[in-house]
Amino acid sequence: MSRVYNFSAGPAVLPEEVLKEAAEEMLDYNGSGMSVMEMSHRSKVFDEIIQTAEADLRDLLKIPDNYKVLFLQGGASQQFAMIPMNLMKNRVADYIVTGQWAKKAWQEAQKYGTANKIASSEDKTFSYIPDCSDLPISPDADYVYICENNTIYGTKYKTLPNTKGKILVSDVSSCFLSEPMDIEKYGIVYGGVQKNVGPAGLVIAIIREDLITEDVLPGTPTMLTYKTHADANSLYNTPNCYGIYICGKVFKWLKNRAVLKQ
Amino acid sequence: MSRVYNFSAGPAVLPEEVLKEAAEEMLDYNGSGMSVMEMSHRSKVFDEIIQTAEADLRDLLKIPDNYKVLFLQGGASQQFAMIPMNLMKNRVADYIVTGQWAKKAWQEAQKYGTANKIASSEDKTFSYIPDCSDLPISPDADYVYICENNTIYGTKYKTLPNTKGKILVSDVSSCFLSEPMDIEKYGIVYGGVQKNVGPAGLVIAIIREDLITEDVLPGTPTMLTYKTHADANSLYNTPNCYGIYICGKVFKWLKNRAVLKQ
Repeated sequence: MSRVYNFSAGPAVLPEEVLKEAAEEMLDYNGSGMSVMEMSHRSKVFDEIIQTAEADLRDLLKIPDNYKVLFLQGGASQQFAMIPMNLMKNRVADYIVTGQWAKKAWQEAQKYGTANKIASSEDKTFSYIPDCSDLPISPDADYVYICENNTIYGTKYKTLPNTKGKILVSDVSSCFLSEPMDIEKYGIVYGGVQKNVGPAGLVIAIIREDLITEDVLPGTPTMLTYKTHADANSLYNTPNCYGIYICGKVFKWLKNRAVLKQ
Repeated sequence: MSRVYNFSAGPAVLPEEVLKEAAEEMLDYNGSGMSVMEMSHRSKVFDEIIQTAEADLRDLLKIPDNYKVLFLQGGASQQFAMIPMNLMKNRVADYIVTGQWAKKAWQEAQKYGTANKIASSEDKTFSYIPDCSDLPISPDADYVYICENNTIYGTKYKTLPNTKGKILVSDVSSCFLSEPMDIEKYGIVYGGVQKNVGPAGLVIAIIREDLITEDVLPGTPTMLTYKTHADANSLYNTPNCYGIYICGKVFKWLKNRAVLKQ
């Protein structure tokens, strides 16, 4: 067998040790007599899986206690709607457009309010990150949005934008867990896990607690309300249990190697 | 190793042969040199996985050509919003409430229009299915909604409701693929797969093509619009690839056993 190392912009290579363990546990996870795919998300054994995964992620990224960790579905594309539906109290948000994903997020937000494109690098095919030290942040902006890494164009923010006190929301799908980050600088950090952390079909959102409220836009689905998932510790309905299990193994693998040690 | 057979209302037992194959293919799917968790959803090898899964499901349920099969995320709970957002053109729908899931769907629909509870068995703790032969169907109802099997209460529709010509929408999460069904009687049949068909984190929706339109309620997220997924053959964004792969194996397993032969 010859293993291929796929580092592409979509789903990518996972640690071989993680896959070997998953294969070994496929018919019997830890003496439970079943696969993680077969067990109740309300069971004690799955509860330990999700709680350990969260604890290890908190440890890796030094996530402060006043941030919730949510395991969600629907990919980053669903967050493009979920973010304005939950945060756009004034119906205004500022977007910095540095690639196709930030652009899609900006376009989706226009359904819900005024989404200002306050900076862009589209003039040169997204080949650079604009100077974000003194942008025209809207006085009533509910948040400032970025896509922190842009795999397709090979760009990444080296310093975060000066949001002039506004909440920073960042899509880290393609750089999640690739280096230490200071979570306190963000209101929301989120990423689809399929590039760096686990199998497609799972999004991890790290959200400052005060941003999780019932005060969402009218018509926001229950499932697209962060509070639904925060109140239920990501178990409002059946989550992507197997995805959470694999991510948990990757977190443990990273911790054991101290890859993210600062 | 002693395998446990979990038949509970949530995630439940999968065929042992399916799990064994998945374990064997974990580091190298079909000579690709990678796990299905690691491969691009745009790759030729994954394209064959999703297309074969759909073809086998179509074969098993004899799905007519004018119905689309969509592989979605977010569970049945997300469909509770997605259905009215996509179908409620007149902002009216009729719900038959036979358990907690139908009740939740009915409550969610109230966010989007008039959701009439035209029958219920809540008076006797959902212990029966009401007579649905001559219900007061609303003249302008966009659809009639049922949850076809109610595991918690042990009830199942033996005959489908007389919808008096209105579109029937059915949640079959807990009876999906457990017996043959006449898809043509439905506008939408959908189910979370975790009870009967595969791992949690995947919903399969079978939708009559004429119901898939751009004419959705204002504010409907792109990801909650059926047309987004139908136009892209469920690959608008990265789907739950591993879930689709496991479901495909279960479909093949069922076909080989002719379990659903009529």
